[in-house]
Amino acid sequence: MKTIFEHRSIRKFKDTEVPSEILQKILEAASRASTTGNMQVYSIIVTTKPEIKQQLIGCHFNQQMVVQAPVVLTFCADFNRFNQWCRLRNADPGYDNFLSFMTGAIDALLASQNAVLEAEYHGLGICYLGTTTYMAHKIIDVLDIPKGVVPVTTVVIGYPDESPDLTDRLPMNAVVKNEKYTDYTEQEINNIYNDKENSPVYRKFVEENNVESLAHVFTDKRYTKKDNVTFSKLYLDVITKQGFMNNE
Amino acid sequence: MKTIFEHRSIRKFKDTEVPSEILQKILEAASRASTTGNMQVYSIIVTTKPEIKQQLIGCHFNQQMVVQAPVVLTFCADFNRFNQWCRLRNADPGYDNFLSFMTGAIDALLASQNAVLEAEYHGLGICYLGTTTYMAHKIIDVLDIPKGVVPVTTVVIGYPDESPDLTDRLPMNAVVKNEKYTDYTEQEINNIYNDKENSPVYRKFVEENNVESLAHVFTDKRYTKKDNVTFSKLYLDVITKQGFMNNE
Repeated sequence: MKTIFEHRSIRKFKDTEVPSEILQKILEAASRASTTGNMQVYSIIVTTKPEIKQQLIGCHFNQQMVVQAPVVLTFCADFNRFNQWCRLRNADPGYDNFLSFMTGAIDALLASQNAVLEAEYHGLGICYLGTTTYMAHKIIDVLDIPKGVVPVTTVVIGYPDESPDLTDRLPMNAVVKNEKYTDYTEQEINNIYNDKENSPVYRKFVEENNVESLAHVFTDKRYTKKDNVTFSKLYLDVITKQGFMNNE
Repeated sequence: MKTIFEHRSIRKFKDTEVPSEILQKILEAASRASTTGNMQVYSIIVTTKPEIKQQLIGCHFNQQMVVQAPVVLTFCADFNRFNQWCRLRNADPGYDNFLSFMTGAIDALLASQNAVLEAEYHGLGICYLGTTTYMAHKIIDVLDIPKGVVPVTTVVIGYPDESPDLTDRLPMNAVVKNEKYTDYTEQEINNIYNDKENSPVYRKFVEENNVESLAHVFTDKRYTKKDNVTFSKLYLDVITKQGFMNNE
């Protein structure tokens, strides 16, 4: 499908609104994604107001696209609505546990990818913000998110003001396993990462970061153990505070 | 986009193989999805052999579609490949924590939805198996999944042998929040669930399950607290054993 194969992440946006009928289609597309038991245990917060985006940008490491893009969608695992419904019907919801968080997160992420593809189909550009799981506690404050709801991912949407090349990917045999998982040999790992390590783009990356290898760019600069540990604790704390860690 | 709006989950499949060039397109479509830092920290296990599907069906509550569908895709959060690469380059990967599991899970789920839409675009039918997070420990055994890898979702794919109606969804204002999250009033919850509760399909559901309301079908029959707690513990145990809970 053309839309899928032409995807690039867009980080610079034109100062053009997303027409409301297109935004509506994007949200409806999200709602057509598969959802566990048709419970739809997710929600989408649509933020367009500059003053709220200005607050959100701090949750996303000040990435300018958060204020530049006309639409910011925050996808959340959401059992709040479902729990309220159950309680109003005198049913006792048992969805305050980690499995339920995962169920909601899966629902939210499948919906997000539908939204993304529908947006791109209409000529819009998108970028996922991985910072959502790092800064969920702050997003919760900014967007008044109640218990039973956890932000999982964010997508910014707008008309592209850049046209980047298609991003490289590892060879297909890197991510696809036949029948069962057979572990990689050293030779296979070398082959899989060979093109990436020898591409001018990534060589420049290594040089600019002044590190030994491309792998070190990730481990020592972009995704360090220290940061990962910090954000792991914060996100587990969010999951707990939002009511998804009663596993007894 | 037509493919998105025509999605139905398919649970009965014809005895027709998926042509290998179409399967290849499906996997390539998966690989075009957004991925954190272009690390591609997921993997897809493609199972087609009847004897392995026969082992997998036990992991999925004996749902017949696991053996009936010609292709079973198991999507996993996967830092194993990335960690091996880092170590071979003398870089020290700090990806043995919960945030890294989430990063891999997000990668895997976005890839899965791309695969699903590409499959449907080629006239195939799909069904997600929510049982993956319940039975990940057994799937790990059957598919020889090593440390650093956690199954997150499974998709069965084949030519449809049924043509179900489009599934109902809650009204859009149920899942979409404007600007910030405003919590539901009792009246809003009643309105949101009104159509569902009054549809003949769901009324029959309540009758067959011999419960007080539709909400009770979920809380007392389909997704009980007892099961959720059991599977929460099992999945957290899997995440720990696979090396994603070193958060200090």
